[in-house]
Amino acid sequence: MSEPFHSDSNVARVRGYLTGLQARIIAALEAVEGEGGARAVTDPWQKAPGELLQGDGITRIIEGGRVFERAGCGFSHVRGPKLPPSATQHRPELAGAPFEAMGVSLVFHPRNPYVPTVHMNVRMIAAGHPGQEPTCWFGGGMDLTPYYGFEEDAVHFHRTCHDALAPFGDDKYPRFKRWCDEYFYLKHRDEQRGVGGVFFDDFAELGFEQSLAMTQAVGDAFLSAYLPIVERREGTPYGERERDFQLYRRGRYVEFNLVWDRGTHFGLQSGGRTESILLSMPPLAAWAYRHEAAEGSPEAELTQRFLVRRDWL
Amino acid sequence: MSEPFHSDSNVARVRGYLTGLQARIIAALEAVEGEGGARAVTDPWQKAPGELLQGDGITRIIEGGRVFERAGCGFSHVRGPKLPPSATQHRPELAGAPFEAMGVSLVFHPRNPYVPTVHMNVRMIAAGHPGQEPTCWFGGGMDLTPYYGFEEDAVHFHRTCHDALAPFGDDKYPRFKRWCDEYFYLKHRDEQRGVGGVFFDDFAELGFEQSLAMTQAVGDAFLSAYLPIVERREGTPYGERERDFQLYRRGRYVEFNLVWDRGTHFGLQSGGRTESILLSMPPLAAWAYRHEAAEGSPEAELTQRFLVRRDWL
Repeated sequence: MSEPFHSDSNVARVRGYLTGLQARIIAALEAVEGEGGARAVTDPWQKAPGELLQGDGITRIIEGGRVFERAGCGFSHVRGPKLPPSATQHRPELAGAPFEAMGVSLVFHPRNPYVPTVHMNVRMIAAGHPGQEPTCWFGGGMDLTPYYGFEEDAVHFHRTCHDALAPFGDDKYPRFKRWCDEYFYLKHRDEQRGVGGVFFDDFAELGFEQSLAMTQAVGDAFLSAYLPIVERREGTPYGERERDFQLYRRGRYVEFNLVWDRGTHFGLQSGGRTESILLSMPPLAAWAYRHEAAEGSPEAELTQRFLVRRDWL
Repeated sequence: MSEPFHSDSNVARVRGYLTGLQARIIAALEAVEGEGGARAVTDPWQKAPGELLQGDGITRIIEGGRVFERAGCGFSHVRGPKLPPSATQHRPELAGAPFEAMGVSLVFHPRNPYVPTVHMNVRMIAAGHPGQEPTCWFGGGMDLTPYYGFEEDAVHFHRTCHDALAPFGDDKYPRFKRWCDEYFYLKHRDEQRGVGGVFFDDFAELGFEQSLAMTQAVGDAFLSAYLPIVERREGTPYGERERDFQLYRRGRYVEFNLVWDRGTHFGLQSGGRTESILLSMPPLAAWAYRHEAAEGSPEAELTQRFLVRRDWL
């Protein structure tokens, strides 16, 4: 069902969209940090000649901000001689073919434990054996990881995802919501990473134009899904207890990304750009043996009522 | 070359050695903590009936000590229906066979950044298809991960490993030292985890009795390899700079264990006891984008002169 990846002009168009999205998101972050607040570092990079992957990217990151303790948002655009099998589950015939991939990926770790961590990614991959028209597909999504659970936050986040996807068919939100729950799951803890959101991969079923439009709709919805939650929670007073719990829960974020996340794990093992891949790491994370929250506490409620598969709408 | 794993009395003998080793090591840790200082928690556990792996263990851990911020030492003894392929590189014919495994594994994270983190493990595995005599082999080793490098510490640690192995053949230390360097390597950082030590796996070439004796020699050498370094460094004054660097470097420890360590990765993915496997995690770890130590600083010296493959003796 996927259409060929027509032309250089499409590459330029998608690249333009992605770099623009990154710029808009970072501008919004800086606005949240406020006047005189933290500004994002801009770090453009390029793969050295002779490396297996070729290409470039722009890392933007705020570290040590008033609201965001570590908030990285990366754009990258790489070409490689051989598509890794992990990059497409549904097109085994393209594994090993030359490919081109570009995307924007972000993880924001706020300072206040009442503000959830968030992840968003949109990406496009094109691949084809020499002499073939390249095939093009899309992936992406966003998901929310609270330390203290609020139903209205989870509902707002899911509602925004739902509404962004609605123009592309009624099936999209439920499918991608379930996919997100299945993907962001810590099997070794039998626990969801957070309250979920949406996740899709290998997507081309609407044809190039509509699949791109759907992916853009997800990227464009990110700020309205997340910022109202930041605004609502960032002034909540907190103390050592909440901070300790946040650091402990961030350990789970590290565990998910390094043990289960296909992109992270594959990237690190295959020679990706380490510092870009690990933009997702928290600034500080803690581990403790058999940490148990007191029955009935908000910390116990998080795992019992929020880190489970639930219909939020 | 490996002899059959004779009898229940051998199982009992090795188990007795391992639980005794764990007890000796924890007693020594508590002595370092001093009178009125931290005492290790003792947490015996047992796999629930019906779980794939059966067996039991004892976790011992100090958290929040004066000297040791997190120091876990676990004993475990499990039986399973199918030996995972990752458990033996050299006996593919035994993959899938019923097996029995026992060992002691520890990671100590000290509070003072001048005291290195240390890891030690000794283990025995027996496996055999029904109707066969089980085959038995050993693995283990220890390695040191400083945050601030001292040649005399690295030399002492390696010297102790060397001397422990000397009675078992001149080839053992050089082989196991090299193996350690190869194993504790962060490919995505092109960096050694620390200054190394020794590592061996799939070992049965000296026969059951001598292979066991060699493994015990490694376990028995642990305290004399590590404690003199703790005593020498634990009073060194430090400030925020050294603490921050320690937390940052601990992030590398997390990266190694979750991304590259076969035991950790396999254990988490295959239903091992999560809290026991993650005894190795630091109490607190940090990440920062493109952290770079100033040329000529002790922090730069660590990576340039210590986290490289070097002959320490």
